[in-house]
Amino acid sequence: MSKTISATVVGATGYTGSEALRLLFAHPNVGQVRATSDRLAGQPLRTSCPWLDTDLVLEAYDPLSASESDVVFLCQSNGVAMRLAPELIERTRVIDLSADFRLTDLDEWEAWYRMPHARPAACAEAVYGLPELGDRTRIAQARLVANPGCYVTASLLALVPLERAGLIHGTPIIDAKSGVSGAGRSKADTEYLLSELAGSLKAYGVVGHRHTPEIEQLLGRPVRFAPHLLPFPRGIHATIHFPIAPGTTDERLRAALKVFHGAHPFVRVCDPGYWPSTKEVLGTNSCRIACAVDERTQLATVVSVIDNLMKGAAGQAVQNMNLMFGFPETAGLPIHGVWP
Amino acid sequence: MSKTISATVVGATGYTGSEALRLLFAHPNVGQVRATSDRLAGQPLRTSCPWLDTDLVLEAYDPLSASESDVVFLCQSNGVAMRLAPELIERTRVIDLSADFRLTDLDEWEAWYRMPHARPAACAEAVYGLPELGDRTRIAQARLVANPGCYVTASLLALVPLERAGLIHGTPIIDAKSGVSGAGRSKADTEYLLSELAGSLKAYGVVGHRHTPEIEQLLGRPVRFAPHLLPFPRGIHATIHFPIAPGTTDERLRAALKVFHGAHPFVRVCDPGYWPSTKEVLGTNSCRIACAVDERTQLATVVSVIDNLMKGAAGQAVQNMNLMFGFPETAGLPIHGVWP
Amino acid sequence: MSKTISATVVGATGYTGSEALRLLFAHPNVGQVRATSDRLAGQPLRTSCPWLDTDLVLEAYDPLSASESDVVFLCQSNGVAMRLAPELIERTRVIDLSADFRLTDLDEWEAWYRMPHARPAACAEAVYGLPELGDRTRIAQARLVANPGCYVTASLLALVPLERAGLIHGTPIIDAKSGVSGAGRSKADTEYLLSELAGSLKAYGVVGHRHTPEIEQLLGRPVRFAPHLLPFPRGIHATIHFPIAPGTTDERLRAALKVFHGAHPFVRVCDPGYWPSTKEVLGTNSCRIACAVDERTQLATVVSVIDNLMKGAAGQAVQNMNLMFGFPETAGLPIHGVWP
Amino acid sequence: MSKTISATVVGATGYTGSEALRLLFAHPNVGQVRATSDRLAGQPLRTSCPWLDTDLVLEAYDPLSASESDVVFLCQSNGVAMRLAPELIERTRVIDLSADFRLTDLDEWEAWYRMPHARPAACAEAVYGLPELGDRTRIAQARLVANPGCYVTASLLALVPLERAGLIHGTPIIDAKSGVSGAGRSKADTEYLLSELAGSLKAYGVVGHRHTPEIEQLLGRPVRFAPHLLPFPRGIHATIHFPIAPGTTDERLRAALKVFHGAHPFVRVCDPGYWPSTKEVLGTNSCRIACAVDERTQLATVVSVIDNLMKGAAGQAVQNMNLMFGFPETAGLPIHGVWP
Repeated sequence: MSKTISATVVGATGYTGSEALRLLFAHPNVGQVRATSDRLAGQPLRTSCPWLDTDLVLEAYDPLSASESDVVFLCQSNGVAMRLAPELIERTRVIDLSADFRLTDLDEWEAWYRMPHARPAACAEAVYGLPELGDRTRIAQARLVANPGCYVTASLLALVPLERAGLIHGTPIIDAKSGVSGAGRSKADTEYLLSELAGSLKAYGVVGHRHTPEIEQLLGRPVRFAPHLLPFPRGIHATIHFPIAPGTTDERLRAALKVFHGAHPFVRVCDPGYWPSTKEVLGTNSCRIACAVDERTQLATVVSVIDNLMKGAAGQAVQNMNLMFGFPETAGLPIHGVWP
Repeated sequence: MSKTISATVVGATGYTGSEALRLLFAHPNVGQVRATSDRLAGQPLRTSCPWLDTDLVLEAYDPLSASESDVVFLCQSNGVAMRLAPELIERTRVIDLSADFRLTDLDEWEAWYRMPHARPAACAEAVYGLPELGDRTRIAQARLVANPGCYVTASLLALVPLERAGLIHGTPIIDAKSGVSGAGRSKADTEYLLSELAGSLKAYGVVGHRHTPEIEQLLGRPVRFAPHLLPFPRGIHATIHFPIAPGTTDERLRAALKVFHGAHPFVRVCDPGYWPSTKEVLGTNSCRIACAVDERTQLATVVSVIDNLMKGAAGQAVQNMNLMFGFPETAGLPIHGVWP
Repeated sequence: MSKTISATVVGATGYTGSEALRLLFAHPNVGQVRATSDRLAGQPLRTSCPWLDTDLVLEAYDPLSASESDVVFLCQSNGVAMRLAPELIERTRVIDLSADFRLTDLDEWEAWYRMPHARPAACAEAVYGLPELGDRTRIAQARLVANPGCYVTASLLALVPLERAGLIHGTPIIDAKSGVSGAGRSKADTEYLLSELAGSLKAYGVVGHRHTPEIEQLLGRPVRFAPHLLPFPRGIHATIHFPIAPGTTDERLRAALKVFHGAHPFVRVCDPGYWPSTKEVLGTNSCRIACAVDERTQLATVVSVIDNLMKGAAGQAVQNMNLMFGFPETAGLPIHGVWP
Repeated sequence: MSKTISATVVGATGYTGSEALRLLFAHPNVGQVRATSDRLAGQPLRTSCPWLDTDLVLEAYDPLSASESDVVFLCQSNGVAMRLAPELIERTRVIDLSADFRLTDLDEWEAWYRMPHARPAACAEAVYGLPELGDRTRIAQARLVANPGCYVTASLLALVPLERAGLIHGTPIIDAKSGVSGAGRSKADTEYLLSELAGSLKAYGVVGHRHTPEIEQLLGRPVRFAPHLLPFPRGIHATIHFPIAPGTTDERLRAALKVFHGAHPFVRVCDPGYWPSTKEVLGTNSCRIACAVDERTQLATVVSVIDNLMKGAAGQAVQNMNLMFGFPETAGLPIHGVWP
C-alpha cells in the first residue's frame, strides 16, 4: 500500500497556488490538503476558485499549523517566501515557487529583484529544483527546494544538453513568448484585461528580465533573453538562436538532446521537421524540444515548449515533491495534453 | 487489487476519439488500449494527435480484433456505428458516441438525420447512457450504450429535475451555445478556420437541430432549441427560459435541482446569484447548474454548463464504462477544471 | 464646400470615448477635435491610447472651454453627464453616451440605477437618439441627445418593427451576448483579465439588468432580458424568442423588418437561412437582422447583431451628430466590416 | 474636384482581395470597383464576404474587361499573376499582391518557389512597391508594381535604416510572428481550424521560408528568418536581434530610424521603453518600430509591427496606387487602430 502525505499550499488562490491544489487533490499519494490565503481566510476556496470542486475553506497562514503538513508549497509573490521559509524548514519541508531562493549569488539577486534579501542564511539550504538537470539526490534530500522560473525551465531543458555537448558557439538569443497567466492573477491592471490583449502580441521587458541571471547561473554563459506576451493564458514557447561550429547538423543537435533526455519521462525531442505547439503540452508536465540548423547563416534554432503553470511552476513543484518523498517521479502528473 | 480491462477506440483521431484515449490512458482500471483509424492505419497516433504522449500505432478497424477488447468506443460520424455495433455486441460491449442509437423512434431518427437506419434490430439493445437520469442498473448491464449528445446532456440535467417537480409551465426555450470542437475535427471548411471565427458569435441551425428530438424524448415535452457557435474550442452553455406558475421562487427551483442531483458526483447546483462559466468545467466531467426567477415576467432562467468533449461526449462515455464494469463512477474522471 | 464643425470628447480614454475620437479624426465634416480626461490631463493622448496616431494632448474638463466646441460627446460613467449636461446645453449641443438621460421616468431611472438623479429638469430637453425608430427631426433639433445602450439598440432594431406590425404575441425573451469591451476600460477587476475570460462564456445579471426598462420604454411591452459575457472585445448578439400567432411565417416577419428598415442605411435584413455573425459588423455602424419561425412550438427567433462600440455607442453618437448638423447620415461611418 | 479612377480586384474573395475591396469602396478617389472570382462568378460578393455591405456581383476574370479599369489588383496565389500581368500591363496598370514579381533574380525565384517562372520578360517592368525604401518616382510611373510580402515589409522598415546607418554588425536574426490570416482563406486544412490553433503558438518553416530572399535582396546582407504562427487573424510582429559595434546605444539606433522615417506618414518610431503591440495597428496602414540595446551581450533588439493585410498587403497596395495616380499618399488609408 502506498504512502500518503499531507500538504499545505500557501497563497492558494493565485494561478500557481490553485494549480498546485488541482494537482494535489488528484495525487494518489497525497491525503489531507490545506490552503491558505490571508486576504480570503474563512471563505470557501470555491468562492475564489470555482473551477476547484471542493468544500475546502481557506485558512490564514500560520507557521505552526502549516508545519504540521509533510510539505508546504509557497506560492506567493517574490519577497514573501524568504521570510516564511527559514522558520518552516526547521519543522517541515518546503517547495518555494517564487524567485526568492533561485539565485545563489545574493548580491545578484538583490540587484535584479531590487529589494534586500531577508534571510540570506536559508539560501544555503535551498536546492534548485530542475530535476532533469541533474541532482535528483539533492532534491530528494532537500528541506527547501527553489522551484525554477517558467522561462528558465523551458530555456534550460533545451540549452543545457547542447552546451554540455559543446555545440553552442556564441551567445544564445532566447526569443521567448509566454501566456498571460505568467503575469499572475492579482495583476488586475488595465494592461491585462481581455479587451486590451485579445488578438495582440507584444514584447515587454526586452532588456533586463529577471529570468536572465537564473538561466545564466545554470547554463554558465551569458544569454540574451527577450520575452513577449501571448494573448492566451497558458504556455511558454522559447525560440533559441545561437551560432554553431561549421559542419554542425540538425542530427548532431538532436542526438545530443536525445542522449541527455533519454531517461526523462517529461521531455520529448521531436522528429525532424516537426515544430511543437504550446497547446500540445497544455495541462501536462511535459516539455517538447525541436531543432534545426540553417547552413546559410551557421545559426541553429531550438524550440522548447512547456505549460508555464505545470512544468513551469506547479507541475514541476509536484515533480520535486515526488522526488522528495520517494514517490514515482510521474505520480499525479498528466502527460497527455488537453486538446483542443 | 483492482480489476483491469482492455479498450479499443474506433475513430481515434477525431476530437471525441482522442479525448476518450486521453482518459483511458490515465484510467486506473484500464490496461491495454488500442486505437483505430482507417485513413491513418499504420501511422503512430502521435503524428495526428501530438498532444498524446504515446507510441501507440493506429490500426485499421477489424471487428474480430476490436471485439477482443472488453469494451469498444465508437467515435465516428453518424451512420457508421449502426453498421458496426450489431456485430460487435455479440462478442463484446460497446459505447457509441454518435447519434445512431439515441432515438427509440426510428422513423423520427430517419426524419431528423435524413438517412435510412441500417440495423433497426440493434436499437432494442441500446441503453441511453445519461446516468443521472436514472437507470444505472440498465447501463450497468447494457451491451450497447447510446452516449447522449452534448447539448442534450447539458439541457436534460437542468430540465428533467424541474419537469419531474412540476415546475415547468410552458415550452422551454433552450438558447444553447457550443464551443467549436463540437463541429468535429474533420470539418475543414473555410467556415471553421480560426480567421473566420475568432472574435465572433453566430447562431446556426436555429430551427430543426437534431438534438431537439433527443431532448424531447427524454423530457417528454416539446422544446424550442436554438444553438450558437462560440469562438473557442470547448464548452456548452445552455440558457433555458420557461414559464413558471405564479409564486414559484428561485429557492423552489434550486431545491428541486438539489434534491434530484444530491447524490450525483458530477453535478453541482450553484449558490444563489452565482452564474457558472463554461471555463470552470473545462477538462472535467462536471455539470454546473444555476437558476433564477424573473417575477416581472413569470419566467425562469436556468443555466447549465459542461465541457462538450467530457460530460458531453468522452467523459460521459467513460462514466458509462465505469458503471458497466463496476468501477467507481468517478474513476479516471477529473472534477477540477483546468484554469486559467 | 462642406461645413466643418469642432468637437470635444469628455472622458476620452475609455472605450467609447476613444472610439468616438477615432471616428471624429477621420470624419470629413469635423475639424478641430479636443479630448479631456481629468485623471490624465496634460499627457499626450497616445500614452493611454497608443492606437490613435495623434499628438493631441489631454485636457482637464472645463465647461467653458468644452462649450466652445460645436458639439460635446460625454463618454463617462453613469451619473456624471447629469451634472455636466445642463450647463453645457445652454451654450452648445451635447450627445451623452451614458445612461443618464435615457429614461423618461426618473423614478424608474433612480430605481434601476440606484442613485438620485441630479438634474431632472434637463431630462425634458433630452431626445432619445435611435434614429431608425423615428424622430429624425427631433434629433436634428436637439440640444441634448441621449445615446441609447448597446443591448437596447440591437434589441429594438429587431423588435420595434415586429411589434408595430402586430407580430409579437407574448413576452419577448432577449437572450443577449456582449463582447467584454461593454464592461469598459476602467474595470480592472480580476474578473475581466484575459486569463479569466479566455475560452469562456457566462451569464451575468440574469435578472434585473438596467437595459431592461430602456427596452420596455421604447417597445411598450415587458421583456425578459438575460445577458451573457463573450470572451472577445466587440460585438452584441441578441437572440430574441417570442410567441407568434398561428400561421405567422418567416416571410411575414422578414417582410415587416424590410418594410420598416428599407430606407435605413445601416440596417440589413438577412436572406432566409443566413445567420449573421458579430464579426461581420466589426468596426461598422451596421446592424444585421435575421429571423425564423419554429412551427412546432409557435415561437419565432430573431437575431440582431451590432458592434457595441459603434452602432451600440460611438458610431450611433456620430450618426446622431450627422443628423444634428445636417451632414449625410452616413458621413464618417464605415459600413464594411474589418475581417478577418 | 478630385480625380476618380476605376479598379478591378482579381481574386476578390480571399483575405487580401477582400481587404483591397474594403479599402477601395471607401477610397475618395476611386469610383467604379469590379471584383472577379472564377470559382464564384455570378454570385453576389456578399455571399462569400458578408462583411462587405454591397450588391456587387462577382465576375469571371476576363483580361479585356479587367483592362478597362485604370488599375488592376492581382490577389491570387503565387504563380497566377505571372501569367496574367504581361497581357494586362499593355493596356492598364497592375499591382500584384502575390510573390510573382518580387525577386529580380529569377533563378532564385524558381529555387525558392519551386516552380518555373512563366514570363521572365515582364519582370523587367516590375517595380518593387515598398515606398518608404525609396523610389517613389519609379512607383509613380510603374505599369507593374510588385507589392512586398508582409514579413518583408515589417522587417525591412526596421532593418534598412539601421543598415544604411552602418549600425548592423552581423547577421540579423528575424524572429517573426504572424497572424493566421497570412495563411490565406482557401487553406481549409485541419491545421488552421480554430479548435487546433486557439490558445497556441508554434514555429513553422523555421529554415527556408520564402520571404528570406526577398528580405536579403533589399537589405543586401544575409538574414536568419524564423516565422511563428499566432492564434489570431491579423498582425505581424518582427523581433529582430543583431550584433552591434561597441558603444552603440539605444539612442543611436532610434535616431537613425527617426531620420530615415521622419517624412513617412505611416511609420512611427516609438519612445524609449515602449514596445508596440500588433493590436495597436490593427486595421491601419501603419508600422511601429521600437529598439533597445543590451550592453551585456552587445546585441540590439528591434521590434516592428504591422497589420499583415494592410501595410503587409492590401493597404500597401492602395498606398502604391495612390502614388501611381498622384493621389495623396494617405488617401483612403486609416492610421488609427480599431481597438479594443
